[in-house]
Amino acid sequence: MLTLNEKEQKFYDAFWELKEKSGSHPPSIISVFDMIGEPKTFVDACFLSNPYATTLFMEHFNREIIEGGKLREYIEAYPPQNKEVAEFLTQVIDVPIDNIFIGNGAIEIIQAVIHNFIKGKLVVNIPTFSSYYEYMKNKEDVIYYQLPKERNYSLNVDRYIEYIKEIRPDSIVLVNPNNPNGDYISVENITLMLRELSFLTNIIIDESFIHFAYEDADFSMVNTYNLLQEYPNLIVIKSLAKDFGIAGLRAGYAVMSADRVSSLLETGYQWNIGGFANYFYRLYSKPEFVEAYDIVRKKYIMNTLMFITELSRIPEIKVYPSKANFALIELLDGSSSKDFMVKLLYSYGVYVRECTDKIGLNGQFLRIASRTFEENMIILNAIKDIFKNAGK
Amino acid sequence: MLTLNEKEQKFYDAFWELKEKSGSHPPSIISVFDMIGEPKTFVDACFLSNPYATTLFMEHFNREIIEGGKLREYIEAYPPQNKEVAEFLTQVIDVPIDNIFIGNGAIEIIQAVIHNFIKGKLVVNIPTFSSYYEYMKNKEDVIYYQLPKERNYSLNVDRYIEYIKEIRPDSIVLVNPNNPNGDYISVENITLMLRELSFLTNIIIDESFIHFAYEDADFSMVNTYNLLQEYPNLIVIKSLAKDFGIAGLRAGYAVMSADRVSSLLETGYQWNIGGFANYFYRLYSKPEFVEAYDIVRKKYIMNTLMFITELSRIPEIKVYPSKANFALIELLDGSSSKDFMVKLLYSYGVYVRECTDKIGLNGQFLRIASRTFEENMIILNAIKDIFKNAGK
Repeated sequence: MLTLNEKEQKFYDAFWELKEKSGSHPPSIISVFDMIGEPKTFVDACFLSNPYATTLFMEHFNREIIEGGKLREYIEAYPPQNKEVAEFLTQVIDVPIDNIFIGNGAIEIIQAVIHNFIKGKLVVNIPTFSSYYEYMKNKEDVIYYQLPKERNYSLNVDRYIEYIKEIRPDSIVLVNPNNPNGDYISVENITLMLRELSFLTNIIIDESFIHFAYEDADFSMVNTYNLLQEYPNLIVIKSLAKDFGIAGLRAGYAVMSADRVSSLLETGYQWNIGGFANYFYRLYSKPEFVEAYDIVRKKYIMNTLMFITELSRIPEIKVYPSKANFALIELLDGSSSKDFMVKLLYSYGVYVRECTDKIGLNGQFLRIASRTFEENMIILNAIKDIFKNAGK
Repeated sequence: MLTLNEKEQKFYDAFWELKEKSGSHPPSIISVFDMIGEPKTFVDACFLSNPYATTLFMEHFNREIIEGGKLREYIEAYPPQNKEVAEFLTQVIDVPIDNIFIGNGAIEIIQAVIHNFIKGKLVVNIPTFSSYYEYMKNKEDVIYYQLPKERNYSLNVDRYIEYIKEIRPDSIVLVNPNNPNGDYISVENITLMLRELSFLTNIIIDESFIHFAYEDADFSMVNTYNLLQEYPNLIVIKSLAKDFGIAGLRAGYAVMSADRVSSLLETGYQWNIGGFANYFYRLYSKPEFVEAYDIVRKKYIMNTLMFITELSRIPEIKVYPSKANFALIELLDGSSSKDFMVKLLYSYGVYVRECTDKIGLNGQFLRIASRTFEENMIILNAIKDIFKNAGK
């Protein structure tokens, strides 16, 4: 079992005070740096994004915006409105423009959907991304559906369908792959649920991590957009922060019925897209960028596969099966996950997500993102080192 | 009276088709460039921002972010949350942190306030910024209060107070200085209204253009934040796009009662601030930046005074009195304001706001922003040239 030294303990107190201020999510790394100074080596394995995609985006940004002399224009001018941006996206995701809603990150869309379209009870599987229950104005309308620990917090689709038919809520949400455990529901099973649960007002599927999932040996991209035609109660929400490594730009979109899109745009969401996010959508509409992106996406998936395999070989932790770009791990040696997180950050410069505050998780959990090959090595070595010293 | 040539007429048709898509606001200049190509000389006098402030911001951005090697960090990392950003702003605007709400531009705050805090009728003075009536979900709850043309669309405060006392709506909104005519209500008169109208649920004051207004010979900054303590129904909304010339970053804030701020943050508005907007708030908290900003603010005010004075000397237009960074003008020679706007843009590279769609305006109106001294000369010469040729 690990213990903290005096400096680590002092940092522990300061960190959890800052966490308090940040609400239910970890403080941003910029705020943490303000507190502890920037460490020599630092790996952000708390936020979940593909670093190779960030590098790809930076190459274009540097060439077209910085060297191209366009920086001032993108900072000074008003960005275009929702429909103008959707015209770029429709070309690449092959969804009619009337079914596309562009958000200031997926989080703005989650907020919009919950506040505007949910008219009764919402079933939220736990553990999952907390905003889905936090954003409900009437907390009594949230029904928590506990995913079973003994099944690695994965969804038993048949039993779930039975349950939803029995309690007949207004809406349900499925994060696929799920955060924080990475459990993946196949398109076949999603289709089954849509067919069986067509009485629901909204079936929200959050595919923010789906670029990291796959169903074939080529890691081909999957999504459920084409199911909207048959099942108009489907709302697919998609962050672009994780797969493209551009969380600071705030980009995301949703695919939903045309009447839902119109009703949102009628009374809001003008100029909700920043200038540089607008640049991203324009870039994303170019076939040569899409092609280059697919290479770094697959490279990152393979990288993540290797990382999770290596993590699984550490005897003091249990690694939960994941098809996302992170793994949920459980400490098996009785160590506190808060101590573990603090030691990793303060003494090894590795920032991971401690999961005590995740409703529906029972145990000593942390969520660790996959990064570059080299960074994953740093993470693996740091974890091994902690357990080696703890044993002394 | 002016007429369009064949090319201008073709552009006229294309422009108004694009406008249709942009809803009730003019298309962004980036979208217009996609259509007509980038002109050799171009002056954007449609969007309303201080170009000297943009230059000041760019100097810092280039030095600290680009040359400082921080670009990737701000693009890749999640931005901090609302309260973390408010900690920077509280230092500079001298408002307690619990009364500050940070928005993705003022427009997100307008949407939040209208959808969350207005529980009945809202009185909107017209002409004004259209989102205040457009965002109301129940259009029957909007009461339009026509500002009188014969008083240059300015507010008669005593008569307004009387009217509001008589009809007793839920809420009112005052854009100060008003957009599109620049009419300014003094702090004394705002105080009078707050005192007399304390029965209202919300008194919304939009001070997005108030950095360009003044009440003394030093052009000292004015605001009404300190009135919140006595009048908790006050909500001050502030865009940062205009005064700081950073519309593409999406930055704005509101000053309102602590319970209103909490109720918004409880069920949303996490990560609504982009990475580069976050950088702006950090920069704004530095006294040396505030000092440098005040110099370019005053320079721009003097510039605008000169510009409006010169505009007033053109006999074919009437210029409405303005304490903002723009002037509302009325064509007196019978020319169409749409033709005028198209000719200015297509043949002179000057983009201004045509006002036919502004509810409450009756006549041939355009709104022209003040820019740099040199750009204002281009605007003035273009307008004079149009009238010279129209007379032939």
